[in-house]
Amino acid sequence: MNAVFSSHPLESRRARLRAELDQRRLSLFVVTDPLNVFYLTGFRGSAGVAVLGPSDAVLWVDPRYTLQAQKDAQNVEVVEERGALLKAVARWLRKRKPRRVGFEGDHLTCSGFRTLEREGHDLLRFESTSGLVEELRSVKDAGEIALIRQASRVTVEAFEETVRGIRPGVTECDLAAEIEHRMRQKGAEGAAFETIVASGHRSAYPHARASSKVLGESELVIFDLGAILAGYAADMTRTVYLGRPSGRMVKLYRAVREAQQRAVEALWPGVKGCEVDSAARRALERRGLAQYFTHSTGHGVGLNIHEKPRLARTERKRLKAGSVVTAEPGVYLEGLGGVRLEDTVLVGEDGPEVLTPSPMDRWIIS
Amino acid sequence: MNAVFSSHPLESRRARLRAELDQRRLSLFVVTDPLNVFYLTGFRGSAGVAVLGPSDAVLWVDPRYTLQAQKDAQNVEVVEERGALLKAVARWLRKRKPRRVGFEGDHLTCSGFRTLEREGHDLLRFESTSGLVEELRSVKDAGEIALIRQASRVTVEAFEETVRGIRPGVTECDLAAEIEHRMRQKGAEGAAFETIVASGHRSAYPHARASSKVLGESELVIFDLGAILAGYAADMTRTVYLGRPSGRMVKLYRAVREAQQRAVEALWPGVKGCEVDSAARRALERRGLAQYFTHSTGHGVGLNIHEKPRLARTERKRLKAGSVVTAEPGVYLEGLGGVRLEDTVLVGEDGPEVLTPSPMDRWIIS
Repeated sequence: MNAVFSSHPLESRRARLRAELDQRRLSLFVVTDPLNVFYLTGFRGSAGVAVLGPSDAVLWVDPRYTLQAQKDAQNVEVVEERGALLKAVARWLRKRKPRRVGFEGDHLTCSGFRTLEREGHDLLRFESTSGLVEELRSVKDAGEIALIRQASRVTVEAFEETVRGIRPGVTECDLAAEIEHRMRQKGAEGAAFETIVASGHRSAYPHARASSKVLGESELVIFDLGAILAGYAADMTRTVYLGRPSGRMVKLYRAVREAQQRAVEALWPGVKGCEVDSAARRALERRGLAQYFTHSTGHGVGLNIHEKPRLARTERKRLKAGSVVTAEPGVYLEGLGGVRLEDTVLVGEDGPEVLTPSPMDRWIIS
Repeated sequence: MNAVFSSHPLESRRARLRAELDQRRLSLFVVTDPLNVFYLTGFRGSAGVAVLGPSDAVLWVDPRYTLQAQKDAQNVEVVEERGALLKAVARWLRKRKPRRVGFEGDHLTCSGFRTLEREGHDLLRFESTSGLVEELRSVKDAGEIALIRQASRVTVEAFEETVRGIRPGVTECDLAAEIEHRMRQKGAEGAAFETIVASGHRSAYPHARASSKVLGESELVIFDLGAILAGYAADMTRTVYLGRPSGRMVKLYRAVREAQQRAVEALWPGVKGCEVDSAARRALERRGLAQYFTHSTGHGVGLNIHEKPRLARTERKRLKAGSVVTAEPGVYLEGLGGVRLEDTVLVGEDGPEVLTPSPMDRWIIS
């Protein structure tokens, strides 16, 4: 049986990883990032270390998680460990005498690595890897896409129901709370990140939190929100205006909207991340606004709210069908305010599919 | 001026750190953990690296965070960096020619360390440290205690208002959503961790998530919740019984309650972490339940929901006045269910003060 084509998604993820390990001549691979552990074993907890190899799939957890791991980690040997998990892993590795052991250099801390080395009694040869599982995760399987689709739907609904009741006098925090409550009522585990509601001058801060500031008349309000559902996130931003916008505001909004559409339209398999970024950036350049677009155009979304692939100025990698990314240009003018528009988009075989199709034309609320 | 006694809490935290650096003969210290960066600079963002030394306090952020950092990081030089922050830090360090540079071994990843080394051109000598800032954080200042007190109050209120409406037929998720919504309405930024509502057989999983399971008649229900407010967390667990509990259930509950009280009563300055743990464990032992208590008795709470000090079997360190910890014994019987009771407690000069004083005697809901 070719495991790559296994009907079981966890098995086929592990098979894809094994092919990577084989290519890098790694005999075994230590997984310490909790999201990568979940992706490869099905176990979702704050503490757990997995080791994978051609014929091994072992998961160490502490006693809090034993029952849950035995239930959720399919076709994986679960080892309960009361002491430090990495010590137990190193002891196990020592007995195996593997040639080369890969680990996650972007996640394993310096202290964790020391533990592996020390407990390995210098018998083990470790090799740092970067983004190995993240690369696999950057192309979603059908089950993952279904979950992101569901998280996206919840996100859109929570936003639309909340924005209907928006009016001057309500606080940013109240709106953020309402959005998150609606997400949960619709079956989300919660917000994938702290919901941003940033109004007036605060909208000029790309990562403002929701504050106790009251929404005023004649203000831009940025909503940046996303539900998380069965581990998978969505990410969406809408900007609205309370009152009657000036001509300058309207131009600002339309420019960002156009940039966002250009970015979405570029999301085809084979396009480079930097090309998507420059599609958005060029649209803003034409309006003389490029210097106010101070972040990159987008990022992958999945188990993590920010993951591969990146849609940034310097990203030469090409998108693959099955990636799910955001397209989110924004402009920020200190003193005046900011506009950001963002969708979660599936890079489909036949082009982009917006998973968060909440209309952008009803942005003026008077 | 002796900065340790500075009226400004950030200055006095940095002064305490400098004293530590001096003792370890570290010329400069690279802070990469976001919570430690917040603790020492006042800047709260997902990305930022600080370097502190006898006469330096510098913070590198990416352009998203420049405005926010300039506003929040008091008496700290803010450097905006478009590239990798650690590269910029290493370049800056190289010019300074420090003797020995400390870094956070428990937080800096292997990849991050490589970047520092490579960009340091082998001119820099790095020294891994463990828990240096966390040790400072384990004793709270007055402002921190006030915030944890506030987060605790919100936690208690959200629980009590929600549990009033509890009845068979409602789902665990609905209750978790209601709790989190009430927290936000009361001024919290949100839940410090995913609220646990675990009923019936699911209560036997110490870290069960809230699920779509409907609450039934004659079931134990564990609520584990905590608000986060201005960065500071609270943590509380209550267990209730829906219906009329059997004699065995009542004994189980009373045993955990007694164990929890023993743990709280032990929380005096000078006591060892393991002594608090064994106070709870002995109470359960007397009822023949110790083997079902599968985790440790408690942990510090603050910027992180789990931090120093630990109240565990193996912890020989003594508690200091000003620490804030949980006391949370629990027993878990597969098939039958679990009981856990937890408070957030201040280790005061004059003994323990429970910050989450929600009564434990109204646990039977019929």
